[in-house]
Formats: sequence, structure tokens, C-alpha cells
Amino acid sequence: MTVKSSNINAVSHRVANEDRWRRQNHQGGILWFTGLPGSGKSTLAFELERRLFDTGFQAYAMDGDNLRYGLNSDLGFSPADRSENIRRVGEVAALYADAGLIAITAFISPYRADRQSARRAAGERFHEVYLSASLEVCEGRDPKGHYEKARAGEIPDFTGVSAPYEVPENAELIIDTGALDVADCLDILVEYADETFRLDDGGVGG
Amino acid sequence: MTVKSSNINAVSHRVANEDRWRRQNHQGGILWFTGLPGSGKSTLAFELERRLFDTGFQAYAMDGDNLRYGLNSDLGFSPADRSENIRRVGEVAALYADAGLIAITAFISPYRADRQSARRAAGERFHEVYLSASLEVCEGRDPKGHYEKARAGEIPDFTGVSAPYEVPENAELIIDTGALDVADCLDILVEYADETFRLDDGGVGG
Repeated sequence: MTVKSSNINAVSHRVANEDRWRRQNHQGGILWFTGLPGSGKSTLAFELERRLFDTGFQAYAMDGDNLRYGLNSDLGFSPADRSENIRRVGEVAALYADAGLIAITAFISPYRADRQSARRAAGERFHEVYLSASLEVCEGRDPKGHYEKARAGEIPDFTGVSAPYEVPENAELIIDTGALDVADCLDILVEYADETFRLDDGGVGG
Repeated sequence: MTVKSSNINAVSHRVANEDRWRRQNHQGGILWFTGLPGSGKSTLAFELERRLFDTGFQAYAMDGDNLRYGLNSDLGFSPADRSENIRRVGEVAALYADAGLIAITAFISPYRADRQSARRAAGERFHEVYLSASLEVCEGRDPKGHYEKARAGEIPDFTGVSAPYEVPENAELIIDTGALDVADCLDILVEYADETFRLDDGGVGG
């Protein structure tokens, strides 16, 4: 990482991560969803937010569509802008995780290098979740009609059609959203979050 | 606000703000500190984070120095970069507030227009806190030695010396950090947070 500015000093937080975790009985972390358009990222992210909240987690879901109205409203879909989009999401997710939340991010994030940057920003709090529905399945669903537009040439650089998707090589969790229904996917995700982030009764662990 | 991308649709959160608030007994919001270098922004922000946490709030402090290592590591101190720096902080603070946290931001944020943008991003959750210590007091303290360097011409465009600070005209709270000590400032801030964000016993209010 290059830091462009000088004359800066980091001030420390007065609340240790462990203090936050103990009070809420779970660690902060990131569930980074990646997969083709139509693989279920946003649907699962927002449903998982609800499920995790209901079982006592602090959780917050973000997706590409939402962030493009605010933080990333200055970015388009050029390769450089896509990369910067994912970089910022990775940094924001890392800030959320540092504040003790489970950040659930739903971004295509097609490039390994960009996902790797997001992983670096958060360290071991980063958990890559590959929603592995195939192109055939995703295009068959086409929930927003984007594949059809992409095939007609109306959306340029569309992942899976006219831009690449680099399959994760070291995802912490792979869910075949082409074969499983939403309820089953959610059960897997909730179980993973429990095992990964929930503290043992005795204190900080996991 | 200009949104550069198209083909986007916002997906709704499944957890209502009120659900988050009820569980933690306080609303999400932003305490946006502004003031000259040396006016006590970072010191108060991180101490307040601790005080709020200890009284049951979800709170997270961010300052310019911290964010410049991550989200804003691509930005320097040119006028355009400073403005973009504050824009992003405003958007991130709004995301935190939406997740139910009290975001405490400690940035000089010298320009009214930039603070106004941050206010727009968060709406009524935004509370501007002007730390009104005078230039004489701040320069007399010079905790990081930056005023001295600025006077020597070693730091260009330094707020208060060679770049303007536009005094807030509609701050929700003004604290004279030149006259009050840290403990007194913190008491004022904690009381303000209690009145502003804490829910009544009966449910959602404030």
C-alpha cells in the first residue's frame, strides 16, 4: 500500500477489540461474498444480515448497488474504477470489522488481485465466501435482465459475458447457490458465522 | 450528488433502524468534530469513544490520521484531495450511523461546503461539534509541532496559518476547548450524546 500523505500519526483507540467482542459475545469480521451476477450475493447478504441480527450478532450488509449511491458515487465501471470500488469497500469493511461488526459485502469482485487487497486490509478477519453458481444457472435466472442486455451489447464489460470472472482459489467457504435454495444457503452461512465469530462461553476465543 | 454509474438498484436492509436502536437502547448518529489543528479533536474523539462505550453505547472514533493509512491512502493534501477526503469520511460516517453506531469523526474539515456535504450524506443523524479553541491557543499548544513547521514554510497549506478555517455557522454544539479541560469537555459531550441518541425507557424516541 502506498500512503500519499506525510505528517501523519496514528492515534490509538481507547476501546480494545476484545472489550467490544466480550460485550456482544462475538468478534468483528468480514464475510466477503463473491460470485457471478445473479449468483445470489445481495439476496443472501441482506437475508443473512437479518438472521445474524436475530441471533444476537451486530451485522451490516453492503452491496455494490447501495454503495454506488454514496461513497462510490464518483466511480463508473471502467477497469480502474471497478478496482477502486472494491478497494474502498475492502477498507470500509475492515473499519466495520474493527468496530466489532460482521460486515457482509455483496460485490461481484471478479478479480483475484482486488479481493486479495481487501483481504490484506482486514487481515485474518477476512473470510471469502464464493457463491459458485455457474454462468448457465446465473444467466438462466437473470433477475435484473442484465445478462440479456449484456448479450445484446447494451452493457459493456459485463462479468461472465464480456469481462472475466476469476474463480477464487482460497475461499474460506464455497456455497453452490446453483444447487441449494436460499434457506439452505442461509443455514450454512449462519453455522459458519457461529463457528467463526461467536465467542466461547469462557471469554474471547473462536 | 452525481451518480456516475447506471444499471443499479438499491436493495433494502432487512433489519430496520428501529430494531437496531431498540436492542442497544440508542440511535445511530454522527458527532462530527471540527476545529483548528491542536483544538483537541482526536484526543476528545478517542476519549469519548471510551466514555460512550463504558455507558453502553456502540461508538467508534475515526480521525484523519487513521483513515489516511487505509481508505484515503490515495489522497494527499491538495484542495481537491482534502475535499474528497472529507466527502468519503462523511459517507463512511453515514454508513456507520445507519448500522446503529455513534460515529465520532475528528477532522479539521475547514470548509463549510465540505461539512455541508457530510451533513447531507447523513441527514438529521449529523451533529456538528465545533471545538472553538482560538488560533493563539492551538498554536501555543502545537502538540505535534506542525504549527512551527508551517510557520517555517515546511508544511504548505496549513489550516490557520496558510490555509483558511471557515468557522461553523450552524453547529449543534460548540465547546471552547481553549478554556475547558479535557474532563469538562468530555462531560459536555457525554451529556449531549445521552440527550441526543439515548432512547427513552418506553421505546424509540430522542
